[in-house]
Amino acid sequence: MSAVSAVKALVFDVFGTVVDWRSNLIADFTKWGGQRGINADWTALVDGWRAVYAASMDEVRKHPERGYVILDRLHRQSLENLVAQFSIKGLNEADLHYLTTGWHRLNPWPDSVPGLRRLKTKYIIGPLSNGNVALLTNMAKHAGLPWDLILSAELFEHYKPDPETYLGAARLLCLQPEQVMMVAAHNHDLKAAQKLGLKTAFVARPTEYGPLQKYDFEATGDWDIVAKDFNGIADKMGC
Amino acid sequence: MSAVSAVKALVFDVFGTVVDWRSNLIADFTKWGGQRGINADWTALVDGWRAVYAASMDEVRKHPERGYVILDRLHRQSLENLVAQFSIKGLNEADLHYLTTGWHRLNPWPDSVPGLRRLKTKYIIGPLSNGNVALLTNMAKHAGLPWDLILSAELFEHYKPDPETYLGAARLLCLQPEQVMMVAAHNHDLKAAQKLGLKTAFVARPTEYGPLQKYDFEATGDWDIVAKDFNGIADKMGC
Repeated sequence: MSAVSAVKALVFDVFGTVVDWRSNLIADFTKWGGQRGINADWTALVDGWRAVYAASMDEVRKHPERGYVILDRLHRQSLENLVAQFSIKGLNEADLHYLTTGWHRLNPWPDSVPGLRRLKTKYIIGPLSNGNVALLTNMAKHAGLPWDLILSAELFEHYKPDPETYLGAARLLCLQPEQVMMVAAHNHDLKAAQKLGLKTAFVARPTEYGPLQKYDFEATGDWDIVAKDFNGIADKMGC
Repeated sequence: MSAVSAVKALVFDVFGTVVDWRSNLIADFTKWGGQRGINADWTALVDGWRAVYAASMDEVRKHPERGYVILDRLHRQSLENLVAQFSIKGLNEADLHYLTTGWHRLNPWPDSVPGLRRLKTKYIIGPLSNGNVALLTNMAKHAGLPWDLILSAELFEHYKPDPETYLGAARLLCLQPEQVMMVAAHNHDLKAAQKLGLKTAFVARPTEYGPLQKYDFEATGDWDIVAKDFNGIADKMGC
């Protein structure tokens, strides 16, 4: 019996691991901007948006007295700052909403849905993402992601890599940490999960950040599974 | 435009509305008891178990200082009381676990899965049940219920019909109450939902309680939809 034989559920990082946020947002906004007559460097906007993502979650961590703030709202606040900073003109309320919900309309990497379908036959599968529940639910319907349930940082009022997220997922599933496998394209996410006793699986998504990618070209930890893609995980998990 | 044209999500009561708990549990336990050599009046046990369900949730409501207790645990506590009361002999820990997780192995009414599949093409669908997340997730895999997400009383640490459950579901979906439709075979559940602004749909499940059924043979409120079954709801919701 392998070390992963006790696993009952696989939970997935989503942005970058399951869906290709950068290419999709740039394509979406470039097309939309053309139709809407809004002129902007959409690539720079998308890269700038993601660049402030970690800091926006840190603000939530630093100020628990303000209460938990869901990712849709953090995205919106960061967008407003970037629109001012980049002097993008002519955006109304509906436009800002359209751009913010771009994160709900992301498409999967080619192997994501086939791999998830295989894994679902034998395991419980769900996201474990910093995206809020509505974002992840809308994305799943858009992208055809066959989740069994939606697990989100919002349910625990803590963003990854806070321990409450990984342990909260195990608790809601009534499983021990070692019965849950975290799947991610980001070594730091797996490191946090492994420290708490979860099993880990790494897939590289070397084009996630486009020319800006600096990390995560390969596994840098002792993960239970390292695979080329989700089909590789399904192979190794006996699906 | 009808009153339900703003609906984006349908949330479902589960025990009795989606699955036929009574017939399934009696059949499961009768077969299992025969194989295991445990002699008991399984019909009386199942009816007795459900009879103490509301009271067990009331205890949680009355004692917030004890913290929220998930339904699996309430089921287990009630079962232990009933085993003693009915003098059922020979049950070990694994047996009590098997019986308690009977509530995870329930099968749907014949129209449930076909109706849910139709509704899923146009709406977000999820349970909104007093069952805990793991129970509902396991049941969905067992019964093939094609939920988009699992919404459970556990996420709100309140049992229905507490307002926190209905309003919590709308909040997690980032929807207004009137954009969410509660579907149930129980008038009291719909009454609580309607009072908070949710839309409502009733289906009668007149055999839910077998010969013990006293209520809910028909709609007794002014519900937005009254249908014969889930296919009838799909018809009326334009799916």
